[in-house]
Amino acid sequence: MKKETDPRFQRSREAILDAARHLLVTAGPSAVTHARIAEHAGIGRATVYRHWPTSAELLAEAMATVPMPFFDSPGIPTREWLRAELVSLGRQLDHHDVRVVAATLASTALWDDGMDARRSRFAQTLSERLAACLVDAQNRGEIVLLSDPLLAAAQIIGPIYYRSTIEHKDTDYDMIDALIASLGAWQ
Amino acid sequence: MKKETDPRFQRSREAILDAARHLLVTAGPSAVTHARIAEHAGIGRATVYRHWPTSAELLAEAMATVPMPFFDSPGIPTREWLRAELVSLGRQLDHHDVRVVAATLASTALWDDGMDARRSRFAQTLSERLAACLVDAQNRGEIVLLSDPLLAAAQIIGPIYYRSTIEHKDTDYDMIDALIASLGAWQ
Repeated sequence: MKKETDPRFQRSREAILDAARHLLVTAGPSAVTHARIAEHAGIGRATVYRHWPTSAELLAEAMATVPMPFFDSPGIPTREWLRAELVSLGRQLDHHDVRVVAATLASTALWDDGMDARRSRFAQTLSERLAACLVDAQNRGEIVLLSDPLLAAAQIIGPIYYRSTIEHKDTDYDMIDALIASLGAWQ
Repeated sequence: MKKETDPRFQRSREAILDAARHLLVTAGPSAVTHARIAEHAGIGRATVYRHWPTSAELLAEAMATVPMPFFDSPGIPTREWLRAELVSLGRQLDHHDVRVVAATLASTALWDDGMDARRSRFAQTLSERLAACLVDAQNRGEIVLLSDPLLAAAQIIGPIYYRSTIEHKDTDYDMIDALIASLGAWQ
């Protein structure tokens, strides 16, 4: 096997990832197979297997190339920061690629333990980040929370996610304001 | 081709649907293939093709066997009826089978036009049923709505859907009460 520092190894790795991502976004997770990637990238099937032995690993890698950096750097005041983050989340979810990654994560997690672990980490990270910001806002006297802050992710991301992935409609900004207002009594 | 009234035709049809549903629920939509169905149902692959020429049709049939009858018979008062419906929706979404159908619909709709038409009808039906009930409740003086009733589906189904399909947590009844309260000023 070639070393990871070998430039040919790196080039084939990148060609494989490009092909995997292209197939995922245009044809869905079931299209991310060693045969189709080899064909699309113009390299041998054995090379694809050498880099990623299973199709589950290939799919995971293809998904990891679509970044989902939400709620990772809290701002103050929380209300304005939250609005900007939810608007950004909604705009991201207007993109086909991001819808594909979200839907693939939700769907394949039901049968694949590795993908389920990824789903679980993703959901927990979002929910803990939001809860921490809201508790901090409450401690600063910016809001009196109405419900468990660990429910906030479902309460305010859920509607944006449903509107995008089930209704296929663009984000509604009045809805975002209403969702933020429903979290508690903003001071 | 045999007639649809032929009992053998009906038996093989039912065996195919049982196998398709079993494969969908246990192994995901990519497992719903003619070869695996033939193997699982113990019938010839040609018979499976005769009933359903494409795997997209097979998947659609397997999904249709999981009923999703939500918000279809409005009760009064709207607030109590809505609470009972959302509790029932949450309980349904606690089942693996229903999560599979919802996730498969959201996912395959991104690449398959037939599934996308099904997703669109499903989303529109839910959103129109909820809007009609809320407008009726407003006309009867039960609520003063705070936002566009066509957003209500995303606002109150979205959090339950996110909690189930992304967080894999059970329905929270306090959250359901908070969601209903957020729709407007209940009288």
